[in-house]
This record gives sequence, structure tokens and C-alpha cells, in this order.
Amino acid sequence: MRIALDAMGTDKRPISDIAGGVLAAKEFGDTIVLVGDEAVIKAELRKHSISAGKVEILHAPQAIAMDAIPTDVLKTQAASSIYIALDAVKRGEVDAFVTMGNTGAVHAIATLKTLRRIPGVKRPALSALFPINNHRMIFLDVGANTDVKPEWVPQFAVMGSIYAQLVLEIAKPRIALLSNGAEDTKGNQLIREGAKLLRNSRFNFVGNVEPVQLMHSVADVIVMDGFVGNIVLKMFEGTAHYLATLVRQEIRKDALSMLGGALARPALNRIRHQVDTSEIGGAPLLGVNGVVIIGHGQNSAIGIKNAIQQARRAVKQNVIDAIRQGIARERP
Amino acid sequence: MRIALDAMGTDKRPISDIAGGVLAAKEFGDTIVLVGDEAVIKAELRKHSISAGKVEILHAPQAIAMDAIPTDVLKTQAASSIYIALDAVKRGEVDAFVTMGNTGAVHAIATLKTLRRIPGVKRPALSALFPINNHRMIFLDVGANTDVKPEWVPQFAVMGSIYAQLVLEIAKPRIALLSNGAEDTKGNQLIREGAKLLRNSRFNFVGNVEPVQLMHSVADVIVMDGFVGNIVLKMFEGTAHYLATLVRQEIRKDALSMLGGALARPALNRIRHQVDTSEIGGAPLLGVNGVVIIGHGQNSAIGIKNAIQQARRAVKQNVIDAIRQGIARERP
Repeated sequence: MRIALDAMGTDKRPISDIAGGVLAAKEFGDTIVLVGDEAVIKAELRKHSISAGKVEILHAPQAIAMDAIPTDVLKTQAASSIYIALDAVKRGEVDAFVTMGNTGAVHAIATLKTLRRIPGVKRPALSALFPINNHRMIFLDVGANTDVKPEWVPQFAVMGSIYAQLVLEIAKPRIALLSNGAEDTKGNQLIREGAKLLRNSRFNFVGNVEPVQLMHSVADVIVMDGFVGNIVLKMFEGTAHYLATLVRQEIRKDALSMLGGALARPALNRIRHQVDTSEIGGAPLLGVNGVVIIGHGQNSAIGIKNAIQQARRAVKQNVIDAIRQGIARERP
Repeated sequence: MRIALDAMGTDKRPISDIAGGVLAAKEFGDTIVLVGDEAVIKAELRKHSISAGKVEILHAPQAIAMDAIPTDVLKTQAASSIYIALDAVKRGEVDAFVTMGNTGAVHAIATLKTLRRIPGVKRPALSALFPINNHRMIFLDVGANTDVKPEWVPQFAVMGSIYAQLVLEIAKPRIALLSNGAEDTKGNQLIREGAKLLRNSRFNFVGNVEPVQLMHSVADVIVMDGFVGNIVLKMFEGTAHYLATLVRQEIRKDALSMLGGALARPALNRIRHQVDTSEIGGAPLLGVNGVVIIGHGQNSAIGIKNAIQQARRAVKQNVIDAIRQGIARERP
């Protein structure tokens, strides 16, 4: 298998990216194709010992900035690592693309310029894997579509469900809609109409869930609009970060608490481990003609390796074909 | 001043409610009018020592269940504590109403049957006070309106801003829209159009804020639609609760951590104190012709007393008149 990895994705580009790629190449035995400026990649690769053939370089002179606006990117960045890598997936030169780069740019270039939508897909969806109690849920959409139409909801459910089954290895994924209350009468217009569509189908729809229920792993595929999804993820991260800061502040205020904090450090570290989404590495962009895994710019080498592992599984399990068939089945 | 308190609001009705009312009557010197079943209230009041005249009873034979549906309540619960208390505010027999009861029922009865909307108000909004770093922000809407039109956004901003100024004592409240990114180009349709309306006005609009920025107190009045607002609050509570559970679980797993946790308990308690919204007591329903403060059903007596204190300030500061004028000024 050949997996393209954006060498210019993380905030610490290309250091973390290449370290993650090398880790994956050693562990999985696939060829990792590092996409980015050849000279920069070669210089960085010298720090690693890796046998020839395990890692290749695909030259791309441009790197898309984290804050670049997708519409600008579409016009000017055809020589970027993201563009060139997605084009390589499209032409079948690699089997998948993994990046920690600009999500909006990946989404725009994949959807509008390179891979394009799977036939019948109204809108591709960005997903996120949300780790609670060592159980992974897939959330979608988390940012590609800020205003979602009810008829897209069953498609998001199909795509998320197939990914959960084939890659996350959940035998019969439970689908839920994120809402402000568990009853079908709750929710905004999108959720109420979406719930109707899911009820009137053969989906494994378990109903609407509230944020508190998310923490009890009551479902596997959580469908929401991209505006809400993005805010929910950031609210989780923001709250966790805020509380961690409070713990550090308050523990320093008296000597006994400080000692207590030091003693409890192993426990606190285990918690950080459980909450930290960077271990997951990334989540798929679903609905385009190719495997694309997007991760956070702050990912470490291990996170990147884990993102690559997801890409491998998705390729092995023929996720794209399964989605193609799933979407075709749902077409009216 | 005479403040009506729902005696049948909390999950521990009437125990916590009456304890909170008695606390407030003693501390503030106002007359607290306990609204609920007279026999039940009298029996509970016997547990307290409070001088006659400080506490009155307004008989209401029904109590609205926490899970009652607003449309049912409107038809059948005219003898409920919420209905009778709101009617007393309307008729000027009391100056304000404080309840820990069913939010949807209070909103429906206040808006459609008793107080009704302030002239010009498109939709009343439920608010919440969100405590971060000992700074209080007012969020609105947090549940009254799941599908919000852009033209309601400036009204929410006016109402929240007046309350922040007069009751929360923030001299020049900063208004923000909750969004999935700080730029004006981000957001869903509502946020993009709402931002335009706020920019083209004399509001103290500081722009869009992301959830992470909320934790840095970058604004005082945070406007959002009621669906998102409700989910954001529940996400904060859910995450905090989940992390607290993780801390307890992990600390028990080894002896040193357990000792550490015991030593750090004062620090952990200070954090709980800071995060706990029950100390705030409640938040206003804004846009109706009367002061209405709604709090969580799990509130303690101290939370209820604090909710009553907010009601007092709102009455003293003539918040309703100020909102009436503010809304009139904004009318096209």
C-alpha cells in the first residue's frame, strides 16, 4: 500500500509530520509518500534512519498556511502539498492521503478540484472521532457544512455508519442526532425533520441525544450540522483545557494541595491521555472519491502514525466502495 | 419589595425552595411570597423560624412537573404555582418572580398567557449566566428559540446588554456572537447576517467568538440561537462532570494518587465552587413585561437566595423599563 502524507501539515511542519511518517513506515511496512518541498523533506529525513523504498518523496513547492482561506487556495495553490497529494490519490498513484493541514483547504480542493464527490452525495462531511470512556464515537459534520438541509442527514448517517463499521470495527453502529433534548419533539427544524427521515428508514437510529448522553457512549455515529459540530468539539476541548488550568492554578495555592497534586500526577496523566484527541490522530473527510484523513495541526508523531493506520484500514476495507454502494441504495 | 418565589420549583420541592426563600427574607428584608399549595408550604415553614410578615403564602394547588410539555401546561395548569405567580406579577401584586421550575412552562405561560412580550420584542429569550474566572457572561438565547431569525439578534443583544449593565454591573458590556471561527466570514447564515446587523449599528459589538475564547472572558453578552445555546451549556456541564468522574476513577486506581487526591481536596473543592453554576442561582427570561428569574432544579437554598438577589436588583434598576426603551430605540 502507498499512503501519501502531507509533510507540511502540522504546526511544527515538517518535523512532526516526517517523524510520524517514518514511524508508520517502520511499523506498518507500507510505503509512505511524503508530499512537500523535496529539499526540505530530504534535509529533515537525514535525522531519521529508514531504509530506502519505505519512504518516497513527492515534490510540492507550496505549503498552504493554516489560516489560508479556501477560496484563495483554490485559485493560487495548485502546487501545494495538499493539492498535489489529492491529485495523486485521484490518479491512483497513492491509495490514501493523510494530512494535519488546513481542513477547509483539504475539503475545498478534494471536493471541487481533485477527488470530487461520490455520485449522489449532496455534500461531503468532515468527521471527528470523539473519545469517551475508551469508546470512540464518530461525529459528523464538524465543519464542512454550516447550514445543513434535512435531506443530507441520512447521507451523513450512511457514511458515518459505514466508516464506524469498517474502520472503527463497531459491528452494528447506533446512529443518533445531537439535540437539545432526547425527545423527537425537541431540536431545531433540521433535527426534527432529520429525525423523521431517519425513523422512516432502515437505519439503526437510536434517537436524539443530548450532550450529557455523549459522555455515556449511548451511540456510535452522531449526526449534526457542521456549525454545531465544530462548536461542540471546541467546547469540549475548551472546557477540558480550562479545567486543567484551574487544577494547576488551585493546586499551587497551598502546600498540601501542591503535594497532593504531585502524588496524583500519574492519575492526572492517565486522564490527559484519555481526553487527548491527538492520540486518535485524525478523522475522515467522507463523501469524496478517495480516502482522506485529516488531523489536528498539533498532532505528535504518534498521532500522525495513528492517522495513517486509519487510512490503511479504510483502504483495506474498501470504505469508498462501500460508501458508493450505501449512497446508491439510499437514492430516492 | 415583594418577590414571588415558586415553592414547587426544585427537584426537592418544597424543601430547598422554602429554605432559599427564608434565607432571602432574612438577609434582604423583602417580603418573599411563597407560591404553592398552602398546606404543604405551612407544614414546611414550621421547620424554619422566621418572623411573620417577612414571608407570605399565595395558594396554588397545582405544581408543574419538570418534564411537562409546555403546550399541555398551557391548556391544563392555570392553577399551577408558575401560572398564579406570573399572573400576580402581571397584576402588580408582586414585583418579580423567581422559580427553579420547568423552564419551557415558565416561558410559555409568561409569553402567551400572562406577562406577554414587551412591545416590539419579536421573541423573548432565555438567558444563562456563565461563570469563567470569576467573570460572569450572559448567554442568550439558551433554549426558548431553536430556530432564530437574523433580525432577532440585535434584540437579544439589546436585552442582554441592558441586563449585564444594570444587574451584573458591567459598565460597558461587550457583545459577541458565538461562532465556529472569529472571522466575520465564518459562522452559519444566522451568524453571518447577525454580525452584519450588529456591525451596522451603535452596538458595542466585539465580533464573533469561538468556544475557546469564552474561557478567556473576551466578551460579556454572548448571543446565539437557542438550540446552540442549550447544547453549549450542556456540553460545558457534561464535560466538567465527565472529567470530575474521571478524576475520581483514576485517583482510586493507585494508593499514592489516592493520598494525593485527599491532600488536594481543598483545591479540587475550590474548583468545583468556581465551575458550579448553582451558586449563581438563575438567569432572566428577557423580553416579557416583568422580572422573571429561572434557575436550575438542582439549586440549593443559597443558589435560590442568589437568584432572588438578582430579581431584587433587576426590579430596583428598572430593567424592564430600560428594555422597553432599548427595544423602542432599535425599532426600524
